Amino acid sequence: MAFSSTISQGNSFLGFRFEEYMAVKAEKVNKLLDEAIPLCHPLKVNEAMRYSVLVGGKRVRPILCIASCELVGGDESLAMPVACAVEMIHTASLIHDDLPCMDNDDLRRGKPTNHKVFGEGIAVLAGDALLSLAFEHIASNTRNVSPDRVVRVFSELSSAIGSKGLVAGQIMDLESEGKEVSLEELEYIHVHKTAKLLEACVVCGAIMGGGNDTDIERVRKYARCIGLLFQVVDDILDVTKSSAQLGKTAGKDLVSDKVTYPKLMGIAEAKKFANDLMAQSVEELACFDAARAAPLCHLAYYIANREN
Amino acid sequence: MAFSSTISQGNSFLGFRFEEYMAVKAEKVNKLLDEAIPLCHPLKVNEAMRYSVLVGGKRVRPILCIASCELVGGDESLAMPVACAVEMIHTASLIHDDLPCMDNDDLRRGKPTNHKVFGEGIAVLAGDALLSLAFEHIASNTRNVSPDRVVRVFSELSSAIGSKGLVAGQIMDLESEGKEVSLEELEYIHVHKTAKLLEACVVCGAIMGGGNDTDIERVRKYARCIGLLFQVVDDILDVTKSSAQLGKTAGKDLVSDKVTYPKLMGIAEAKKFANDLMAQSVEELACFDAARAAPLCHLAYYIANREN
Repeated sequence: MAFSSTISQGNSFLGFRFEEYMAVKAEKVNKLLDEAIPLCHPLKVNEAMRYSVLVGGKRVRPILCIASCELVGGDESLAMPVACAVEMIHTASLIHDDLPCMDNDDLRRGKPTNHKVFGEGIAVLAGDALLSLAFEHIASNTRNVSPDRVVRVFSELSSAIGSKGLVAGQIMDLESEGKEVSLEELEYIHVHKTAKLLEACVVCGAIMGGGNDTDIERVRKYARCIGLLFQVVDDILDVTKSSAQLGKTAGKDLVSDKVTYPKLMGIAEAKKFANDLMAQSVEELACFDAARAAPLCHLAYYIANREN
Repeated sequence: MAFSSTISQGNSFLGFRFEEYMAVKAEKVNKLLDEAIPLCHPLKVNEAMRYSVLVGGKRVRPILCIASCELVGGDESLAMPVACAVEMIHTASLIHDDLPCMDNDDLRRGKPTNHKVFGEGIAVLAGDALLSLAFEHIASNTRNVSPDRVVRVFSELSSAIGSKGLVAGQIMDLESEGKEVSLEELEYIHVHKTAKLLEACVVCGAIMGGGNDTDIERVRKYARCIGLLFQVVDDILDVTKSSAQLGKTAGKDLVSDKVTYPKLMGIAEAKKFANDLMAQSVEELACFDAARAAPLCHLAYYIANREN
């Protein structure tokens, strides 16, 4: 997929080295996640949690959180516990989403899904444990942030994943299978299933970084654009790539009658929509210092142009 | 079941009217739980959450939390959000525990289990949503408590339900089916599956109520006794009562080869063990003002003598 972009070079924006930034941050997040889920008793659930959390991935959500913290002038250490927590929450939702009683997926990130390896009972519990661990990790590991900001982060994060957030999207998604779905309903599903958590990543990063209310609402607007962008690109990839390239079962949304952007507006229009969202997200950061905004601008470009 | 007791009258201790206390607190908790889960969009998940949360019950966990808050001199309003949250967490764990891939139960509190009514997918999501809502409810509704105490409550609560708490107990329980289990392993299951959350209820109540560290560690000891007591009585009831009396499938633990206290030590010894635990729990509160300690003393007696 190729998008025209305000970041024409792709890899440098005011001399910013995006790939290096991503690699360095991801390595730090991976190290902390590894330490946060030790292989202790009871072994089975910790193995199951580690299996799905440490499988790799670009760590886009944690890095959005860290980049937003740095955007408002905070050190990355302030956001690290939340950055790890959002990856735990994201993984928990994937484990439950893949269950036979939900999307019934066999493949995730190129490997058998959690319940295929550990069984359904353990998979349910591994998801529950990751949700709890996310909150525990923030409460126990946050340093040098005033407790009122930590409580605010708990509020943002928990409302993003509950029945007004992620779960609402999953429910509507489940119920839309095999039915005619409008563009409005499709957006509802994506906003709740994907965008709400991405928004929480960015907003919580700014809260932990010491951002004021104006900063926080500005990054929220950016986050809303990339949230929707994320899902539109996901839908496009689902029809244009093979399972091997994606690391998950491709074309599944079409087979199972799930509504997607390409199905509703065609591939060309869906790509244009994605491009517009990317441009809009970058615009939302125009009032910030350009060097500090570079990671989030690049992340928007990266999300628009990702290949899996 | 009849226990000898340090509270010989059962219903009055220093003039304290326990049944009235329980009824008043339960009514307040029920009203707040009803408001906390409105019947809004998406209807299905909120219906499923309400179905299991508002089914009734004595609200022992919320009342333990409130009574502990009052024990250390706090007003009940300080603990109310946590009191509601622990009931949400408890219900979430029951919904997931009853799933076919876990305990596979059809009956809970005299009604069909959540997945029997709403389907497995919705039941998984209703549990997830209740877990999130518990944290959201505390973060958004706590008033007049310093944020550092709220963060401490988040830490206690989340560690009580994750892979070192409730989930650890559920995993070991799942893995013990059909196997020989020692008394030590049985205690591990119960401490984690039941007692950890009960401990968190009591400890978090004292934190929210403004208790100092000495108070908090004292109520923790009380909580550990009643945590184990709770499960021992549950096991005894499972072999001595019918399904109709219990409101759930009786004798199931025996049928499915699950280890229980009556199976390991006989009914008489199990009853004596329960009685010792009750006496010990009451002793732990000896240093508190007797009138303020009355609700928690009565709660221990109540847990030992409950009929379902």
